[in-house]
Amino acid sequence: MFLPRLDRSAREPLARQLADRILEGIETGALSAGDALPSTRRMADWVGVSRFTVERAYDELWAQGYVEARSGSYTRVRARPPRRARAGGSGPESRLTAAPAGKAGPLGPAAARPEPAVPPPLRPGDRIGPAAAAAIAQRERMRSAARAPAPAAPLDGPARPDRAVIDFYSFQPDRRLFPSEAFKRAASEALRSDPGSALTYGSPAGHPALRERIAKRMREHGIDAGPDNVLVTEGALHAVDLVSRLLAGPGRSALCEDPTYPGALAAFEASGLRILPVPDDPEGMDPAVLRSTLDREGRNAALVYLMPSFRNPTGRLTGQRRREEILAVCSESGVPILEDGFEEELGFLGNAVRPLASMDPGTTVLYVGTLSKSLFPGIRLGWIAASEEWIRPLTALRAATSLGGNMMAQAAAAAFWDSGAYATHLRRVSRAFSRRLRAAREAAARHLPPFAELGEARGGYLLWVRLPGGPGPEAAKVESEVMEACRREGVAAAPGSPFHAGTSPGPALRLCIAGLEESEIEEGFRRLGAALKYALLEKY
Amino acid sequence: MFLPRLDRSAREPLARQLADRILEGIETGALSAGDALPSTRRMADWVGVSRFTVERAYDELWAQGYVEARSGSYTRVRARPPRRARAGGSGPESRLTAAPAGKAGPLGPAAARPEPAVPPPLRPGDRIGPAAAAAIAQRERMRSAARAPAPAAPLDGPARPDRAVIDFYSFQPDRRLFPSEAFKRAASEALRSDPGSALTYGSPAGHPALRERIAKRMREHGIDAGPDNVLVTEGALHAVDLVSRLLAGPGRSALCEDPTYPGALAAFEASGLRILPVPDDPEGMDPAVLRSTLDREGRNAALVYLMPSFRNPTGRLTGQRRREEILAVCSESGVPILEDGFEEELGFLGNAVRPLASMDPGTTVLYVGTLSKSLFPGIRLGWIAASEEWIRPLTALRAATSLGGNMMAQAAAAAFWDSGAYATHLRRVSRAFSRRLRAAREAAARHLPPFAELGEARGGYLLWVRLPGGPGPEAAKVESEVMEACRREGVAAAPGSPFHAGTSPGPALRLCIAGLEESEIEEGFRRLGAALKYALLEKY
Repeated sequence: MFLPRLDRSAREPLARQLADRILEGIETGALSAGDALPSTRRMADWVGVSRFTVERAYDELWAQGYVEARSGSYTRVRARPPRRARAGGSGPESRLTAAPAGKAGPLGPAAARPEPAVPPPLRPGDRIGPAAAAAIAQRERMRSAARAPAPAAPLDGPARPDRAVIDFYSFQPDRRLFPSEAFKRAASEALRSDPGSALTYGSPAGHPALRERIAKRMREHGIDAGPDNVLVTEGALHAVDLVSRLLAGPGRSALCEDPTYPGALAAFEASGLRILPVPDDPEGMDPAVLRSTLDREGRNAALVYLMPSFRNPTGRLTGQRRREEILAVCSESGVPILEDGFEEELGFLGNAVRPLASMDPGTTVLYVGTLSKSLFPGIRLGWIAASEEWIRPLTALRAATSLGGNMMAQAAAAAFWDSGAYATHLRRVSRAFSRRLRAAREAAARHLPPFAELGEARGGYLLWVRLPGGPGPEAAKVESEVMEACRREGVAAAPGSPFHAGTSPGPALRLCIAGLEESEIEEGFRRLGAALKYALLEKY
Repeated sequence: MFLPRLDRSAREPLARQLADRILEGIETGALSAGDALPSTRRMADWVGVSRFTVERAYDELWAQGYVEARSGSYTRVRARPPRRARAGGSGPESRLTAAPAGKAGPLGPAAARPEPAVPPPLRPGDRIGPAAAAAIAQRERMRSAARAPAPAAPLDGPARPDRAVIDFYSFQPDRRLFPSEAFKRAASEALRSDPGSALTYGSPAGHPALRERIAKRMREHGIDAGPDNVLVTEGALHAVDLVSRLLAGPGRSALCEDPTYPGALAAFEASGLRILPVPDDPEGMDPAVLRSTLDREGRNAALVYLMPSFRNPTGRLTGQRRREEILAVCSESGVPILEDGFEEELGFLGNAVRPLASMDPGTTVLYVGTLSKSLFPGIRLGWIAASEEWIRPLTALRAATSLGGNMMAQAAAAAFWDSGAYATHLRRVSRAFSRRLRAAREAAARHLPPFAELGEARGGYLLWVRLPGGPGPEAAKVESEVMEACRREGVAAAPGSPFHAGTSPGPALRLCIAGLEESEIEEGFRRLGAALKYALLEKY
């Protein structure tokens, strides 16, 4: 067993000492590539320090590239630890990867080797531009929030080591529902019947057959579109990114709902757009605040980003009247709307509400759709639907930045659609998600304590639970206590604060039920209720 | 027959008149969706104007979305012409696509309908940001150069209507060499053996199996890489785009070879980088100019973009000594090199030269590779190989802008690689291209006139032919005359000027032989020789 010893009388902080001991372990071979480090709790017990100290040590090792921390698994020693900066270069043969553990670094046999007379390699930190740095930081915030709940890990510590964690955290469709067999047949069929169009550079706007199917689907949603109104992208986020890049310019801003999908925020940052969150009132994005923000921004407002149907993270459905109010405000200001309809494919909506893109001739609405949730994420197919005069520059920009999409996947998706298997699949997942949503509402009513307030849940598979507590840092603190209690109970949920670009108005949790059966949902809410009572009952 | 009449006494320019007459033809139904417009030559003859006037009219219609012009085909009337701005809105049901031809517009029955009280839709031109606009303009320059030779079209005018055009223009691998069957088997195998990893969101860095294979290939090229040194991208251009975005910032510049791949220039523009072309001397990029440019730019120099092996468009191989000189200059200036090794996979190089990424520990080299040329373009798979501290932020940026890649394609490519079929395929195409290159050199010696100077052609499948004539606009003019003669002879080639970000030093042609059999190459050079003599013999 690897047991690091720390010197409490030394001036060096304990976290630094712990990181150094682990590094020595890697360099001397006591720890090998792929070895799991002990959990932070266990390491804290062994070494006699706080878990916070262990976490800081692990974070430092991670940042230096010595260990990898996967969401939902222990921290492991990397296969190829990078040479430490202070060890200097050791020749061209090890420029990218360092020598094996134990052969390099200040403590290894290579330490005596003379420094070569070349300048040290550039560090990315010196060179990364401001927009990229902001996007990467936004993503790191999401990742660090993601690391906290450790959803699929074996439970840490004494509580319930016998049970699998129930994962309300991950936003992954249910693998058990993937139409793998039917899709495989469609992919083979596409490669057989027209290998030319599946294997060559295609139109940067996408495979004609798939654009045709998507346009037809848009018309089913009330959006009057032909194939020339469709640009196929590498998933919905790529679509958001292309629109951001088209509209970005010095000083320009993206207005968005708050809370919203943090992935879109990262894409806005990557284009250099300033993010302006517009808070919700009980109906959705507040049109009065939207109007005053647009007035203030003037020509700097590049776009308004909306996810009106079962928004990630709140699951909120913005009603028809509010959609019209928002359209009217944007229309007056002459600002394009980027409508993220990521849930539309699942067909929960019926005719109750219509996409904004189907409603108003006076405003440009760039509609984003995706097959990631309705088919499977690995396909990486999304699209933008808009008027041709917008699709044309977007297509040119797509071509300028990645030529075009994967024609094989696009041809396969079109063949899958044609075969009727997609319609069957959609009915199947739609039924499954409706059942799961009903089960979740019932389980929430049974198990959540009265101080936890379940948001509306009329469709989709995201639920938002508001908890008592103040805004901003207090919200994050309450969420972190609840996460810890959830961990003890064997249930994972996402904290609400990272979804806010503005100040979080209070603690909340996002629950995703897409990947769970009804019985798992019932048990998950039981555990969540217990965790909430444990964490918050004394206070409220 | 549709015969537009122009009024030579009117003040309106003839091109505008012609465009308006054609529009009326569309709106009255005299021209229907899908109808081919006459060739510019024929229309010029009919109407009695210059071809330049016809081209301007067609371009205006194209820009307004009424006709489509595909490279290598006639201009056709679009299926859904957009409503003309001056016709006003006609209700939500036709927001994206206009009413059918003849039903809208000032001359149709709908003209009497009152204007609805909504503002007109936003025009993209008002909104597109400066970086996106520059990238789109760069791409349009490429497209308009591409439209000139009309490679696969039936011949225009009287010359040789009986013969298929021989296409040295297109940069497409030979479809006849695609390993469709073996790849289909590999794709099925990947979906069968591990549908989970092929169908879900995977790591944004790429499918582990494919990163493993790519790292191994990098080591075969002398680059010391493990899987953590590899980020899988959606083709080489996407890799160039990610690096550009990572390094872009206000005032920053990309230094590049001149001539170079115009796709990379468009990606640099899309990130807002200023493009600084560094001219060639006979060995490649001139290191003295590189040094003085880097000195002048200082911290603003974001990267130096190089394609040292069989560069597109010249096919030039930068030798080992020049590679070292360039590395030394960049190393002193502390500027990262973006090395585009798009040809490396085809294995022409042997051990004669090494990728820059394998050579110098003192300079950061971000290596870009691709399977588009060695496997097939529809797969859209490329990669960046670099040290982990660069791969990590690049991966985060990739995740921030498109989550991750198509896992199905990546798993299939890894399976294809594993099966041994990739090695077999590479040997096969490598042999084929070697034979074709030899055939091209021999045919060039036989058929090209002495004033046409064939550049070095030691590998790859691109040839560069220098023609007599002055720099800049004169070069473009000579190229355009040669294009016209090529068209008459039934051969297509790419003009050299669009590959220059700086001033073209003189007229040139790029010939791609990847898609042609030896006999086609022989006949193509015969025609090219005839075209060059026809166009230039009187002058030289």
